[in-house]
Amino acid sequence: LDTARTLRTELGALVTFKPQVFARERGASHVFLANIDPDLQQAVLRQLRRPALIAMDSMDYWIRHKRASLLRLMKRVDIFMANDQEARSLTGEDSLVAAARGLRALGPKLILVKKGQHGSLMYGGSFFIVLPAYPVAAVIDPTGAGDTFAGGFMGYLAQAGSCGGGALKKALVWGTVAASFNVEGFGLERTATLTKKALQARATAFRRQVSF
Amino acid sequence: LDTARTLRTELGALVTFKPQVFARERGASHVFLANIDPDLQQAVLRQLRRPALIAMDSMDYWIRHKRASLLRLMKRVDIFMANDQEARSLTGEDSLVAAARGLRALGPKLILVKKGQHGSLMYGGSFFIVLPAYPVAAVIDPTGAGDTFAGGFMGYLAQAGSCGGGALKKALVWGTVAASFNVEGFGLERTATLTKKALQARATAFRRQVSF
Repeated sequence: LDTARTLRTELGALVTFKPQVFARERGASHVFLANIDPDLQQAVLRQLRRPALIAMDSMDYWIRHKRASLLRLMKRVDIFMANDQEARSLTGEDSLVAAARGLRALGPKLILVKKGQHGSLMYGGSFFIVLPAYPVAAVIDPTGAGDTFAGGFMGYLAQAGSCGGGALKKALVWGTVAASFNVEGFGLERTATLTKKALQARATAFRRQVSF
Repeated sequence: LDTARTLRTELGALVTFKPQVFARERGASHVFLANIDPDLQQAVLRQLRRPALIAMDSMDYWIRHKRASLLRLMKRVDIFMANDQEARSLTGEDSLVAAARGLRALGPKLILVKKGQHGSLMYGGSFFIVLPAYPVAAVIDPTGAGDTFAGGFMGYLAQAGSCGGGALKKALVWGTVAASFNVEGFGLERTATLTKKALQARATAFRRQVSF
């Protein structure tokens, strides 16, 4: 489960999809543009008033087929998330440290590289933060782990109301811990019933495993 | 550089090697049995008086060809180190958490799984410790990284004079940091001139990157 391999991408309904943001959501302060055609991500962004923080994800398909749109969008977001293969393919760098630097030069102030079961790396120009994944005994289904990670990360920042180094590191912890629940079951099996208390307990256990 | 692949093992001089421990070293308190034929590791151990702490490493070659000897030796050591592939192949477990548990059931009280650029995992029955690797910009030569890691780890424990959870975690940090220097140059280029001060500085930087 180390390397995400896309055997085939079927865009299906997304080919003609024109996302409309509800009026009540246009004032959102924290926005995560999940992986989709970068032109659609841009179209969503245009419907929003003035988000305080914008994060985005992408995938190899768009890196190959919509590179120009993707690069244009990257100049408008604060946080760029990618998995390790995508970070390498966008920058041509094999080292993830070099790839993170290369991605930041493309616009986003904060780069987040997801390495699946091997954890993540965050780069903000003056600092690197590295975390392992939370060690789970059995990975049942990694589908959605990246989006769950992004949800935990953005959720923490939204409620913290800060983007300082300490908050970013804690947000990374919450993303890591949220994703660790996701992989323990199929689909939404684990995440749909997840409580803040369970997340908090695992974050505390994770701190004992990692911090020194 | 993710996966250590052994294309061919030439035992060479090791076929007839009979290691003799100098009289002045027989009283060593901290012993690391680096990777070699488990029967030779056992022969070295027999020459030692009463080590306080014994660690060992092995490799796929011995797992395949000398499994019985390896398993016998594992019952006599305190700490077993293996890379991720070896941990999986010895236990038949794909999950490293399950593999670490499986290895501990074979005898050693402490299991250390090395994951190269992805860090390491330590399991001691009642606790897991997980650490990423120190993020280096360019890996020049990973040869010897595992032994450098073991050296930093055992060196820390020897000077700490303790084997509590805190000391073990710190020892893992020193092993991680020592190995990070090793991979930045060919052979002993970096390690031969390494100072305690440089190790300490990197351990401090690593703490900022990891601890929360």
